[in-house]
Amino acid sequence: MPTNFENHISARFPFLENKKLFLAVSGGLDSMVLLHLFQQLSYEIAVLHCNFQLRGLESLGDQDFIRNYCKENNISIFTTQFDTEAFAKDYKLSTQIAARELRYNWFYELLETHSFDYILTAHHADDNLETFIINLSRGTGLNGLVGIPEQNDKIIRPLLPFSREEILKYAKENNIQWREDSSNASDKYLRNKIRHDLIPVLKQINPNFLKAFQKTQSYLQESNEMAEDASIMIYQQVAKEAGEEIHFDLNQLKKLPNYRSYLYEWLNEFGFLAWNDIYDLVDGQSGKQVFSAEFRLLKNRETLILSPIAEVSEKQEFEINENDHEVNFPLNLKLCNVSHITIESNKIIFVDAEKIQFPLILRKWKEGDSFQPFGMNGKSKKISKLFKDEKLSLIEKENSWLLCSKDQIVWVVGIRQDERFKIEKTTKKILKIELQ
Amino acid sequence: MPTNFENHISARFPFLENKKLFLAVSGGLDSMVLLHLFQQLSYEIAVLHCNFQLRGLESLGDQDFIRNYCKENNISIFTTQFDTEAFAKDYKLSTQIAARELRYNWFYELLETHSFDYILTAHHADDNLETFIINLSRGTGLNGLVGIPEQNDKIIRPLLPFSREEILKYAKENNIQWREDSSNASDKYLRNKIRHDLIPVLKQINPNFLKAFQKTQSYLQESNEMAEDASIMIYQQVAKEAGEEIHFDLNQLKKLPNYRSYLYEWLNEFGFLAWNDIYDLVDGQSGKQVFSAEFRLLKNRETLILSPIAEVSEKQEFEINENDHEVNFPLNLKLCNVSHITIESNKIIFVDAEKIQFPLILRKWKEGDSFQPFGMNGKSKKISKLFKDEKLSLIEKENSWLLCSKDQIVWVVGIRQDERFKIEKTTKKILKIELQ
Repeated sequence: MPTNFENHISARFPFLENKKLFLAVSGGLDSMVLLHLFQQLSYEIAVLHCNFQLRGLESLGDQDFIRNYCKENNISIFTTQFDTEAFAKDYKLSTQIAARELRYNWFYELLETHSFDYILTAHHADDNLETFIINLSRGTGLNGLVGIPEQNDKIIRPLLPFSREEILKYAKENNIQWREDSSNASDKYLRNKIRHDLIPVLKQINPNFLKAFQKTQSYLQESNEMAEDASIMIYQQVAKEAGEEIHFDLNQLKKLPNYRSYLYEWLNEFGFLAWNDIYDLVDGQSGKQVFSAEFRLLKNRETLILSPIAEVSEKQEFEINENDHEVNFPLNLKLCNVSHITIESNKIIFVDAEKIQFPLILRKWKEGDSFQPFGMNGKSKKISKLFKDEKLSLIEKENSWLLCSKDQIVWVVGIRQDERFKIEKTTKKILKIELQ
Repeated sequence: MPTNFENHISARFPFLENKKLFLAVSGGLDSMVLLHLFQQLSYEIAVLHCNFQLRGLESLGDQDFIRNYCKENNISIFTTQFDTEAFAKDYKLSTQIAARELRYNWFYELLETHSFDYILTAHHADDNLETFIINLSRGTGLNGLVGIPEQNDKIIRPLLPFSREEILKYAKENNIQWREDSSNASDKYLRNKIRHDLIPVLKQINPNFLKAFQKTQSYLQESNEMAEDASIMIYQQVAKEAGEEIHFDLNQLKKLPNYRSYLYEWLNEFGFLAWNDIYDLVDGQSGKQVFSAEFRLLKNRETLILSPIAEVSEKQEFEINENDHEVNFPLNLKLCNVSHITIESNKIIFVDAEKIQFPLILRKWKEGDSFQPFGMNGKSKKISKLFKDEKLSLIEKENSWLLCSKDQIVWVVGIRQDERFKIEKTTKKILKIELQ
């Protein structure tokens, strides 16, 4: 007679039939039940076991235990060892998150190299409840309460609707051997406290607590998805992606009484921490900025501009030689000799080739730079004044390049040409320079 | 020296200054602290006290206690008594919800009649936590976890950031007298269990649990508002309100993988309970319906149509007499004699007044009804066939009216006139009937 477990698996995951399945097995109660179950169901399975080397000999014992089991039962097994502590230290992760990272990376790698279809893990209902309470106890957002899903991508958790109690019962009825689960070692004390002191009280209040909790989590998941929908829809209304930048229209955004929630959603992944500063930016002075390690957020009139922090040093200069017809860094420029002037635009200039001196130089502007703007009869103008007149944002200023001949500015690239290098009646050789 | 409480109140609610404030006081610890606090702060206050008559003499004792206190301290007081149990029974509410309903209704009434500005209640941080856990234990959605807000509309809860412990400390330091709070009587056992067996464990796990929890609730509130934003935005995209009906465009809606969540949000308030039937409707046959007590949801091709269940019985008939120039129920019709035919439209017919017999009758169609459609040379057609050809939805069919002269149909109102009553060369008296 098929068990509850078997019925659930075939009803909920009919698509697993004839698929090749990896089972993640630590050797603990839950994963040994998972393994036993899938042996009965006669799918094509192989076992994956990670040794995280967190408990020395005990970890090795787990590995031996599961290896022997697979040998006796004629099941393929893949094992690996991780230096979890070192990885955690290198990437500044908690041991637990490091272990998870290593484990899933390895799983996906094997999935690909061995052409398997899915990875099954032994998470159950109490895992989700314990994680909920741990996150709640520390303070969390909705994401911390929704629980791990039954399936995401290639990972399937067929035991998720079942309680630890049901799994233990199955193990006893089927004489399953297991070793104490080592994967939760780092928060074992906490989970035990929750398991023994907290969850029993909840079950006294409502004997069907675990079922009610599963419903709660599915409702929370629905709300979470709706909140994500809103985040995407509002983003599409107020954000414009421009190259590497994202421009947020504050006039639009501020119509929403809860716009801070949206800013948080959008900017969170860019590593910002100073949220109050960011919220202040919305009504702050034009020109103010907030930084994360790799990004900057600039208030520019009625726009917030998110951009990566430029990697080119302000002092770097780039030479262009006489036989260069193309420049690809830090800008894309094309240079060629032409016989006459064609279209003019901000992106193209024509200069008298005999007036310039190679190598031309591309550099950022600095305070005090000035030039003689084309069409102003040789009157000099400060670059800073030009930028102000052109209403350039701080980021646009910083991203601007000057094309220079010795110490004279030939072109404020893409903005204004210099008078001194322009084509005249006497010009013999015309150089066309085009910004791509 | 101002206390934490006083600082919080003046910083968080500066707009209360010079306002007239009602304090909801049960006589229990929390509300007596609230009262004492606002006496110190010298606002213009008056006390509101409800006797819910749930604990007999004890309730009367509470009332006397707070009356005496107000007399001694020269504070205005308003009291009222409710037959809470009877109200709960009448409206099929839990005692607690009935009490809340009665209380807030009375509060708002007094606010208006006495021109006060705000009502202050003594809810504190532990109240929110206990409610969270009660709802969690029973199973809940996000709404059950977000907590009561610091302010909604005219209700302000100035003690919400403070714990029961802090409030107790204040009471002891200020020698405040109180009576055991009677308002939570009905779930007192439950709250005590949570207070003594559950929350201490959470505080062992994290000594700052209550503060972390307040942050959690504010994050959840943010997510909740975003989910509500999404619900409104998607509604605007897929729903069209047409008179008393709402039409949901399924082609649009089904593009969303989580459309069920939205249907639930929108239809919940209309009293539907059979959610699986509703979800099945989306891909179900045209013509299928699901009912709540007062509403129906009909699948009509690629639309779900929500409409109130008609209150007019199918068998009712309405007479129109010769000197009636207007009909206002169940339809709006205008009747007048005219000298010639003007515009024709679905909403207007012209009939030969001598061919009809008053009283005309308005009635719903029934199976077997047939008539002679205008322009079909006296050929007879079943009304059911006409409706089918006109592609009327089930609701449209049910909402259709027939205007009859004796047992002959003069007009399928708004749809098609009968041939037999049309104007001819010999017509002497023209009656114009117009649907408004």
